[in-house]
Parts: sequence; structure tokens; C-alpha cells
Amino acid sequence: MEHISLSRCGARLSATPPVAGHAAHVISFDSGHAFPGLLPDLTAAAQTALSTYRPETLQYAPRPGLSELREWIAGYMREDGVRISADEIQIVNGAKHGLELACRLLLDEGDPIVVTAPTYFTAIPIFKSFGVEFIEVPQDGEGLDVERLERLLDQHMQEGRRPPKLIYNIPDYHNPTGISMSLRRREALLQLARSRRIPVIEDSPYRKVRFEGELLPSLKALDRDHAVITLGTFSKLMAPGLRIGWVAAARDFLVRMVQLKADGGSCPLTQRIIIEFAKGGGVARHIERVQTTYRAQRDTMLAAVQGWLPAVSTTVPKGGYYLWLQFPAQVDTDELAKRAAHEGVTVLAGGRFFAGKDAPKNFMRLAYSHHAGAEIDEGMQRLARALKTMM
Amino acid sequence: MEHISLSRCGARLSATPPVAGHAAHVISFDSGHAFPGLLPDLTAAAQTALSTYRPETLQYAPRPGLSELREWIAGYMREDGVRISADEIQIVNGAKHGLELACRLLLDEGDPIVVTAPTYFTAIPIFKSFGVEFIEVPQDGEGLDVERLERLLDQHMQEGRRPPKLIYNIPDYHNPTGISMSLRRREALLQLARSRRIPVIEDSPYRKVRFEGELLPSLKALDRDHAVITLGTFSKLMAPGLRIGWVAAARDFLVRMVQLKADGGSCPLTQRIIIEFAKGGGVARHIERVQTTYRAQRDTMLAAVQGWLPAVSTTVPKGGYYLWLQFPAQVDTDELAKRAAHEGVTVLAGGRFFAGKDAPKNFMRLAYSHHAGAEIDEGMQRLARALKTMM
Repeated sequence: MEHISLSRCGARLSATPPVAGHAAHVISFDSGHAFPGLLPDLTAAAQTALSTYRPETLQYAPRPGLSELREWIAGYMREDGVRISADEIQIVNGAKHGLELACRLLLDEGDPIVVTAPTYFTAIPIFKSFGVEFIEVPQDGEGLDVERLERLLDQHMQEGRRPPKLIYNIPDYHNPTGISMSLRRREALLQLARSRRIPVIEDSPYRKVRFEGELLPSLKALDRDHAVITLGTFSKLMAPGLRIGWVAAARDFLVRMVQLKADGGSCPLTQRIIIEFAKGGGVARHIERVQTTYRAQRDTMLAAVQGWLPAVSTTVPKGGYYLWLQFPAQVDTDELAKRAAHEGVTVLAGGRFFAGKDAPKNFMRLAYSHHAGAEIDEGMQRLARALKTMM
Repeated sequence: MEHISLSRCGARLSATPPVAGHAAHVISFDSGHAFPGLLPDLTAAAQTALSTYRPETLQYAPRPGLSELREWIAGYMREDGVRISADEIQIVNGAKHGLELACRLLLDEGDPIVVTAPTYFTAIPIFKSFGVEFIEVPQDGEGLDVERLERLLDQHMQEGRRPPKLIYNIPDYHNPTGISMSLRRREALLQLARSRRIPVIEDSPYRKVRFEGELLPSLKALDRDHAVITLGTFSKLMAPGLRIGWVAAARDFLVRMVQLKADGGSCPLTQRIIIEFAKGGGVARHIERVQTTYRAQRDTMLAAVQGWLPAVSTTVPKGGYYLWLQFPAQVDTDELAKRAAHEGVTVLAGGRFFAGKDAPKNFMRLAYSHHAGAEIDEGMQRLARALKTMM
């Protein structure tokens, strides 16, 4: 992970006259939508699912999920270095649903939990719905600062407060910062979690959205104590609309968690579509397309940031969906996001990614997943125009 | 609703010698699975959903659900006498998910709630997960006994206890009893709920699974105060495997409820499949098939009960999926269910349908939805054999 300053790059911004008012076609850098050209053709899989497998796909599904899909996921994780079997996999309605279920099992009102600052913004309201107290730990280029966390935990316990009930992190291509944890940090985090007996939730949607660099072992692969609960999803391996994810955890944890899955078994139709698509190697081929496409889109967006936002520095993620932009200290990105929307580009102000109250005001997350090429460049021009109105 | 005693019917049981051990093919009277022959052909709808609508069905969906589906449901409910618009509909992952979300909004730990005794057994653990206290009210042939409920509420309040936070009921073809509330009882329940300011959850999966008799207005159609929260589902209108249901409630209620929907928008693919199937009148045609098929299966099961279980009395439901059997007082249906499983037929003991501790032991729910004809008769012979081992 490099963090490059772009403050000396180009002066093209002033050369382009601002266009007032709404743009005809809104460009969205805010959401983690898939690039439309990457959405797979699932018609054949659906045809098989709804004919050959009709008695399975249109009746209620078993609560843990279809066993064939759980076997496939276990195999997929074993190829990735995890010792795991199908009965350590619970199918859920997307990773967020898995996070909520894990929280319901682990948390009581007022429990402290550990999150990075910043962290995944959609996880924050889920945690808040359980009335948690946040212990926020910063990241550096190696990811979550474990030594700092150790000191924070010492201080927390010396104050006689309740021990934290979980550590939540995205070790691969972190959302929003794009940072991947180094191997020694992964090991240190697990060591600390073990010594303090705190479960770790490894949220891992982007692990296969990898452009370059070494693939380090997942936390789950390094876990010797069944202390890691890994959240997986087909949203990034295939398509978000499937709403199928999984929780990989110790069997006794899942047995208790599934009792809280009030909706019964997750949709067997979408589960079977995934199985049929994966059977013929569809997922593996799709991952290759994902990597090629998003690598190019990342590069396009990096070039556009360099070209149009010379006062801004950005991360250079080696995978994932997002750039994390740092604006000059005086730029309030909440205001900038509003002005950008007026210019026809949607973005997320960085403040939304901080669980606590002291969020810096000058960060922003941009997704390069949804658009490609000229649209990325056009979106960045619009953002630059919005910024200009604030300077 | 008639309740007929079958104690004088036939002596065929003793004429058939019991067959020991497991049956080759298990007959399931326990679950509300659809009859396999009724599972609709959704291949064309899925083909359209995954090609024409691919950018919609494979990306994230809007949290309230696809607007076209919400419009369709609002129209479907308006035809049924409800004044409602699409923004009073929230799409959820099946009615159970809707019940859980409504509970999360309405309930605090220890709150009292009103349920019938017996009530839908899957709702019980959902309620219990919120730590509720149950106020159980009996039913008679006209459904929930509203006068009795009024006295129970008076007593409850005189004891200085917290007021109940919701009344949960299934007014049409109640699960498990098959009873439909009379019109005067529906009106009385709403009057009581209004005067005590208690929201009513109307769980309505079986309303269209109607065989005969007058169709009375739903509670939602009679509601003048936005006090009714109605749970709907496509599980019985199309197929359980779709895992798509809805909550119909006041707009401000839904706005707050959707914040708790941590999984984001429900699966847009299954939503679009439903829209495409419903567009061509598929749902209306399917409802006709459902009514014809399950009416015949109900009659087959009633005849089989009369033939093979002469000591048992049963309800004669005018719709829905279930018979509610009353065995002689000395029969423990928990034990009978175990012995029945050994004979190759699965059933649910009635005790599971009572939220409180004082459940009678001699009731049983049988679903006639999953099997037809000779299989129903064979299943009932197996149940009769199991009963004989207890006499």
C-alpha cells in the first residue's frame, strides 16, 4: 500500500469551464455496485435451477443452506488455505445479514467492540442498533495498528470497563481505505485476540478482487483457536443482487446463531443458481474478469484524480473497489458531496466511515467499480468543479 | 368453522395389520410445504428477469423493494378492499422476516404481547427472542375471543403491569386451528385495539387459500386508524422458495422499520421473477389451482381421519393448509409424534403451538398441503398404527 500525494500534478482543472446545474446522466462513485458489463449471464443456471431442481428451489430450504453450496464454499476456502468443512458454513442473505446475526449472538446492550477508524459505513448502524460502545483503532500502511489496540485495551480495562465483545476488521483491501494487513499484523492481531479472548469478525468481500501484490493468508487461515468468524459473499464473486453470503465459524457458534435466523432458510433458488454457475467453473472465470476490469478502472480513476484533483492525495489500493481521498484540511467533504451531487456525481463523505464523534472532515471514498473509462474521467471533472466552488 | 367429532366413525384401523419399522418413503404432515405438483413454472419469468432486467436484478435493490412489485401488491390489496398505496408496502425476505422487523421496532425486553392459544409455532421463538411476556387468549368458532381478551387486559392493567405492545393474530384460516374470525369479532378486536392503543399484527399467509364460505374483510380493510400491520407473502401465492413477503403498514412505521433492515434491499432477482409471473395473470391463475388442489387434499385428509382415527375429533377448515386434531385426553401427542416418525409419517404435536407453559398435551397439527390422495391416506394409516401402540 502506497499513499501518494498528488498535490503537484497538473493544472488541467482550471482549463475546463464549469457546467452549471444537474448533469443529464448521474455518475455514481458512492456505491459498491458492480460494473454493469461484468454482470454474469445466469440464464442457463436459472433454467436448470427452475426445471431440474424445481422441488428444491421452490420449497423451503434447510436453515443452514443447501448442502451442495456449503460444500462448494468450504472447498473454495480450503483452496485459500483454511481448514474448514461444510458444517462450519452458514448461508445468509448477504454478508451484512451475517454480521447482524453474529452481533445478535455476541452482543448485549452497551458492550464495547473494536473497529478501525475509518470502518465500513454500513456496519456502523448495525453495531449501533445493538447499543455498542466503540473502541476505535487507527490503521497505518500495514493495516490495523495492533500495538495501539493493545494499549487501548489496557487502558480500557484499567478503567474498570466491560471487556470488548468483538474485533471487527476487513483485512484484505479494507473498505474504505484499501489497505491490506501485513502478515505480521495479522498474526499479532490473532495473538492479541487470543490472549484477551475476544472473537474476531473478518469481513472479507474483496479478497478475490485482487490486482497485484502477494496474497497473504486470511485471518481464518491463520486461526488456530476457532476465534475468527469470517463473513463471505457472492456479491463480489458474482453479483450483488443474489443476496447470498455466508458465515464461516466454529460449529457450535453456528448452531446457536442459526436459532436467531428467524427468516428460515435463505432463498434456495438463488443458492442453486450459484451452484450451477460455479459447477462449470463460472465463478473462477468471473473472478478473472473482475480482476482485469477493476484493475483498469482503478488505474483510470487514479489518473483522473491526478489530472483533476491536484490538491488531493489518494491511496493506491492493490485490490477492492475504492479510493480513499484526503483533501486539504479546510475542505468539508459533507459540503463537497452535496455540491458534487449538484454537478451530477455522487460520492460519500469520509465522515460516514467513522463510528465515533471525532471524524475528520476532509476524507472521501470513491468507488471505481460502477463506471469505466470516460465516465470515470467525466465524474472526476464534475467533482473537481464542485471542489472549485468551495475554494 | 365446524368442529366435528369423529369418535363414532369406522373401525377400519383394526383391520390393517401394523407394519413395523421405518417406511421407505417418509410422508410429511408436519410442514407447510407446497404440493410439488403446484410449484409453478417460473423459467420464462426468470429468463426475462436475467436478460431484459439484468442491470436491475443483479445489482443491489432499493431497500423498500422494487417499486413495480410494491405497486402490484398495493393493487392486489386494493382489490381486496384495503385503501393502500405502494409507499405503505415494504418488501421483506418472507413474512417471518417481516414479523421480526416489526417486533424489533415495537418491542423492548420484557414487554407483554397478546397471542392466541394456540398460535403459529414459528412466531413463538421470534417473540421469545425479544424476551416478551405472553398474554394468551383462547379462540372459539368465531376466532379470537375479544371479550375474554378485554377482561385479561383489564386484569393485567389492574395488576399495575406494562401495557401490551402488540396483538398478534391470523384472522383467516388460522394456523394451526383453521378458524376464521367472524366479522363482528374482527370489528370488536379493532375497537378494543383502538381504545387501548395497541397495534395489531395481522399475519395473513392463507387468505387466498380459500375453499368455501364467505370472504370477510381483512383487518387491514377494516382499519381506520393505521393500527394494523399486515404481513403478506408469496410463499402461498406462488412458492415458498422465493423468500419474498411484505409488510403493509403506515408510512411512518415503515420508514422507521426499514432502518432496521440490515441486509439492505431484498433479492431483486426473485422480486422481478414475481413481477414477470404476476404481469401475465400468473398469480391469479395459480391461486385458482391452489384452491382446487388444497380443497381436494383437505377432503382427502378429513376422510382419512374419519376412516383411520375414529377416536379423534378435527376441525373442518374452510381454507388454509392444516387440520387441528384433538385426541382423547390421555394421548400425549409428543410421544405420538415420535412413534409416528418411526412409522414413517412426520407430524407436529400441538404443544408446540402454545406460547405459555400450560399447553394441553392431546392436540396435533396435520398439514394436507404437501401430499395428495393415496399418500395422505397412507400417512394417516401410519399415524393410526403409531396411536395403536399407545393405547
